[in-house]
Amino acid sequence: MLPKPQIVNLPVYQPGKPIEEVKRELGLDEVIKLASNENPFGCSPRVRAAIEAELQNITLYPDGSAAELTEVLAGHHGVGRDQIIFGCGSDEIIALIARAFFVPGDETVMADCTFSVYKSNADIEGAVSIEVPLKGGTHDLDAMLAKIGKKTKAVWICNPNNPTGTIVSDSELVDFLDRVPGNVLVILDEAYAEYVTDPAYSNGVALLSKYPNLIVLRTFSKIYGLASLRIGYGIGQAGVIKLINQVREPFNTSRFGQAAAKASVTDHEFVAECRTKNRDGIQYLNGQFDRLGLSYFPAHGNFIMVDVKTPAAEMFQALLKQGIIVRPGFAKYPTHIRVTVGSAEQNAKFIAALERVLSGSEARV
Amino acid sequence: MLPKPQIVNLPVYQPGKPIEEVKRELGLDEVIKLASNENPFGCSPRVRAAIEAELQNITLYPDGSAAELTEVLAGHHGVGRDQIIFGCGSDEIIALIARAFFVPGDETVMADCTFSVYKSNADIEGAVSIEVPLKGGTHDLDAMLAKIGKKTKAVWICNPNNPTGTIVSDSELVDFLDRVPGNVLVILDEAYAEYVTDPAYSNGVALLSKYPNLIVLRTFSKIYGLASLRIGYGIGQAGVIKLINQVREPFNTSRFGQAAAKASVTDHEFVAECRTKNRDGIQYLNGQFDRLGLSYFPAHGNFIMVDVKTPAAEMFQALLKQGIIVRPGFAKYPTHIRVTVGSAEQNAKFIAALERVLSGSEARV
Repeated sequence: MLPKPQIVNLPVYQPGKPIEEVKRELGLDEVIKLASNENPFGCSPRVRAAIEAELQNITLYPDGSAAELTEVLAGHHGVGRDQIIFGCGSDEIIALIARAFFVPGDETVMADCTFSVYKSNADIEGAVSIEVPLKGGTHDLDAMLAKIGKKTKAVWICNPNNPTGTIVSDSELVDFLDRVPGNVLVILDEAYAEYVTDPAYSNGVALLSKYPNLIVLRTFSKIYGLASLRIGYGIGQAGVIKLINQVREPFNTSRFGQAAAKASVTDHEFVAECRTKNRDGIQYLNGQFDRLGLSYFPAHGNFIMVDVKTPAAEMFQALLKQGIIVRPGFAKYPTHIRVTVGSAEQNAKFIAALERVLSGSEARV
Repeated sequence: MLPKPQIVNLPVYQPGKPIEEVKRELGLDEVIKLASNENPFGCSPRVRAAIEAELQNITLYPDGSAAELTEVLAGHHGVGRDQIIFGCGSDEIIALIARAFFVPGDETVMADCTFSVYKSNADIEGAVSIEVPLKGGTHDLDAMLAKIGKKTKAVWICNPNNPTGTIVSDSELVDFLDRVPGNVLVILDEAYAEYVTDPAYSNGVALLSKYPNLIVLRTFSKIYGLASLRIGYGIGQAGVIKLINQVREPFNTSRFGQAAAKASVTDHEFVAECRTKNRDGIQYLNGQFDRLGLSYFPAHGNFIMVDVKTPAAEMFQALLKQGIIVRPGFAKYPTHIRVTVGSAEQNAKFIAALERVLSGSEARV
């Protein structure tokens, strides 16, 4: 029972504590989770009916090709139906890309503080991850370009970047894409795209017709509020999507996921409302961080990375005791935490708890 | 954009036609799908409430470790919590096993007419599938054993076998396991286990304590009637399950899938009722096939493979015109179709349609 040599020492996912367990252990009535960049404003009101309608089909396999959802999304993005592939979250698209393209010894270029699933999947395939330092919390595209060599199979750009929240602009991205060799895949992970209000931000989908080596990732887990249902997608040239489809299991998304996503795509009003509330939340939190003398990276998604000037693991524990769950654990930024932009009420409670910890009125450990 | 060389010519999944489309194209009021071995008797009545309760958590990621479901299933099977891994159907567990264990050049042994996902995943990893001919529609364990060599990483036994429906007995299996080298994984796919009424059938889970190289696969897509929700699982020794977990994406099952599965596991009454109705359906269909002079393999799952004495693709089309969808396309058995055991009414309609085609009162193409 000899596994692939490269997987022997990979970490196993360690689940966070369920909210109910945190409440019980710490004797708290309320716990606010601002750790997973979920949507505090729910999902489109159209989703409940879509799910209830699917209950009659519960025994039936989903349409493995997700034909109806593909049709709706192809229209939404103005791309061909053969340019879209669905996954169990965009996480699975990342895994499928690695599984379709990487062989041991391949190199893949990414930032040194970005979404961890790029590296974990490269590791599984025995590919070498070249991690390029962020510059001021932002992808350093020139430095990444300099790392592309003969062995490079793919480059990952998370935009906005998780966990720092920063973006590269449309002009920076186009300049980069113009210089990347055409045989190197560029995966542009736009999981938080719908939150961005900065006019300098690119729409990656619009770049697809010019760059056949580009794949754009999107998800229904963030602004659409469907994280529970596990559905995300990739868009690219038909030939690239076909290769990824060749390693996809036939029934990798659920009926409920497909139905909820289909009901959500065209609810532009819900998306716009969440984007506005999120922008307001960012402005509020930035103002409060300024008041508290804390620096932070410019946030473009639904989360902010802030320097709490204390070891992140300690701050995590101190906030947890007050019923607030945030995300610590970024090696490059040992005193930063990532906090999801919550509802106005959640944001205020987070700031109050943070202020209590910083002022020393609450023990830190 | 050079993919893995072994995936270039892999087929892409071709979806079947949706029932609604078949109705429209052929001008039919009713279409009966007996092609995917779904449960014609629905799912446990406890499922609806479980799904409705989860609607309030729709924006939240599932528990990636499926702790509550794991607890319930560990109790159900009498195994440790660290012996269970969940997937997007047992399909995904097959993919994860291949991804964790197979390197190019490895060999993997399977029947020459069995569940196609074993071979497709071996192909993706560059492993060589040694396909051993079924004997009378049944796994030939002695011949399979003879094919195990130094390069063999795994052996796949589908029990009951999809598509033939046959089983290997407990004593045959134990005799086989006693002789398989301990470094070769044996994957026992028991997707249809809960349907089997033959006392000679083994409970694979009971064999786990004796054979550390054994992995048992189960699913909620068949007797539990939850195919839409994509949830299946594997059980094995903790060390083996840990290795598979190392290549699993953190959130590979949905909240609804976990909740529905948890509600279903302990509804023994529903499972027993489906098993009885299915056994009655098998007896009815076998009797009708006897009357029509058709031979068939002994069926132990919720489907029967019957020799219709005419090219299967032609029979498929002829039945389709009468609103019955069955499964043709098994190279080894060119005049056999696989038909799901439906409800009593569906079975009678299938037999009536089959009889019309065989008697020539309906054109075959």
